[in-house]
Amino acid sequence: MRKEVIKFKNPPSIISSASVVGRREHEGPFGNKFDIYDEKDSFGMPTWEQSEGEMQRQALNLALSKASLKPCDIDAIFAGDLINQCTSSSYGLLDFDIPYFGLYGACSTCAESLLLSAMAVSSGSFEHCAAVTSSHNCSAERQFRFPLEYGSQRTPTSQWTATASGAFIVSSEGKGPHIVEAMGGISTDMGIKDANNMGAAMAPAAISTLSRYFTATDTKPTDYDKIITGDLGFEGYGIVIDIMGKQGYDMRPVYTDCGLVIYDRQAQDMHAGGSGCGCSAALMASHFLDEIRKGIINDVLFIGTGALLSQMSVQQGLSIPGVAHLVRIKGEL
Amino acid sequence: MRKEVIKFKNPPSIISSASVVGRREHEGPFGNKFDIYDEKDSFGMPTWEQSEGEMQRQALNLALSKASLKPCDIDAIFAGDLINQCTSSSYGLLDFDIPYFGLYGACSTCAESLLLSAMAVSSGSFEHCAAVTSSHNCSAERQFRFPLEYGSQRTPTSQWTATASGAFIVSSEGKGPHIVEAMGGISTDMGIKDANNMGAAMAPAAISTLSRYFTATDTKPTDYDKIITGDLGFEGYGIVIDIMGKQGYDMRPVYTDCGLVIYDRQAQDMHAGGSGCGCSAALMASHFLDEIRKGIINDVLFIGTGALLSQMSVQQGLSIPGVAHLVRIKGEL
Repeated sequence: MRKEVIKFKNPPSIISSASVVGRREHEGPFGNKFDIYDEKDSFGMPTWEQSEGEMQRQALNLALSKASLKPCDIDAIFAGDLINQCTSSSYGLLDFDIPYFGLYGACSTCAESLLLSAMAVSSGSFEHCAAVTSSHNCSAERQFRFPLEYGSQRTPTSQWTATASGAFIVSSEGKGPHIVEAMGGISTDMGIKDANNMGAAMAPAAISTLSRYFTATDTKPTDYDKIITGDLGFEGYGIVIDIMGKQGYDMRPVYTDCGLVIYDRQAQDMHAGGSGCGCSAALMASHFLDEIRKGIINDVLFIGTGALLSQMSVQQGLSIPGVAHLVRIKGEL
Repeated sequence: MRKEVIKFKNPPSIISSASVVGRREHEGPFGNKFDIYDEKDSFGMPTWEQSEGEMQRQALNLALSKASLKPCDIDAIFAGDLINQCTSSSYGLLDFDIPYFGLYGACSTCAESLLLSAMAVSSGSFEHCAAVTSSHNCSAERQFRFPLEYGSQRTPTSQWTATASGAFIVSSEGKGPHIVEAMGGISTDMGIKDANNMGAAMAPAAISTLSRYFTATDTKPTDYDKIITGDLGFEGYGIVIDIMGKQGYDMRPVYTDCGLVIYDRQAQDMHAGGSGCGCSAALMASHFLDEIRKGIINDVLFIGTGALLSQMSVQQGLSIPGVAHLVRIKGEL
């Protein structure tokens, strides 16, 4: 039988992190926590895909600087994004000349990259890994739904793909925050076919991973200081509280979601909240890791949530599977 | 400074493998080595993307059967394909209920998935991992170039995306073949812009990885029984022999390429050969691993080669980076 939970013997450290965001994310409640932003969302590049790649480049560059490391010190990059063939990662990170492992976990990619970096480092194979992720509203919307120029009306359950990137340096030594445990997500498909309701498509995957984790570790939500899902937004957040409650787990005292909090619901009107792999990556790389570093919170579950749809799978009438990877991060061991 | 070569302390075993191919691959020189084929290339599914997913499902199913394992014995799947958002993997492997890590390494994905499976198993985190990859001519051609219905003329350097899938079970115990070493590829872009010349776009990445590996290990090509690249085809194969020769490495005595050999050049006229992540996955999972199991060859370098283009990056006029991951496989330690 499968080992459900990965317990890292020598818990790797996240020795540095950096975040890069666009205008709307900068105008949101956590605006001043992000390291870099561009008022025009273009980051000086001629296409949105290249803008997104440039965000990854800037995020990794800054994370390296903060850790006083050079590209040649990094054993491997684990990176991905939402764009077809992970174009933003491939091109954005090309100039670093670091061994490159491309990932596709949709919006769960930040957690997937942290999990695999931690595994690679704790195995002794590598000393320093970089985990890098991004999303960009303009590149994602035209790929998955409509080009922005159409000005399509958005449904109430739709989320706003965040223009955001986060980079993390995961190392075998360092004072923390530490990645102490992890759990890979099992893809879960509950028959949701609405590509404008990602929260409902991804919530079952988050519920699956959380239930498996609590059962395997014999713990409950309030054993942790905070439980953070990636980008379920208002729809998915409510579903998680509801269904987990029915399973006997009261999530409410400790539960938050990056998509829920990245924008100001009153002032910014982003409908069901934020989404995209950059949403959780930027918030984890800034606000939440800062809180752990400062000791405000110490024991955190981060569950990246991804919807494994493609434009073609939607056009072919298939329902949307979700996947949710978990990493447990502790400030002090 | 970076550790170039990963040396696995307890070399994981590839305890079973399975291959699934389409009609043209079955008609090729290795046709009777593949486990499963479908004369219609559709595998009973209504769309090409679902046909490709079904190939992955059948490949993993058979690999599990050969190893007498059940899905619940597998700790994680590392899988990917060429289709946008890795649709074939996400949907094809959904029903197994195994933790799922999506990868995007273009045609290098087979080597990437073997490398990460080996790392995960040798780290002690997992006992059994599955590495699964596929490509399908019909889904790939309409996505990257032209829909088949156009009947476009193909250029002499173009390769035929193989309709093929391979699955491997990588385990902490077993009698081999063993994955003893690995090296992550550094993305390499030499300015090739022709989306119909994948061999030229990927060859520099293979050359980069081979040079780094020979330098780091102080070895030369003839120290190995066979060196197998993924899908460089006739163009890329020639470039590798040429440039490696100029660097002082005579590849000719031991070098082959899956894209070069999967079709019969005279009888099948596939232009520059085969390509796609399934090309190397199916040949490694059948013919080459069989040769290692039988002791015909014992010490093999397998270098998966991927071109990190997307339809959009080509349309935007960008050149095509390549990446090449290496795994060293030995029959007896």
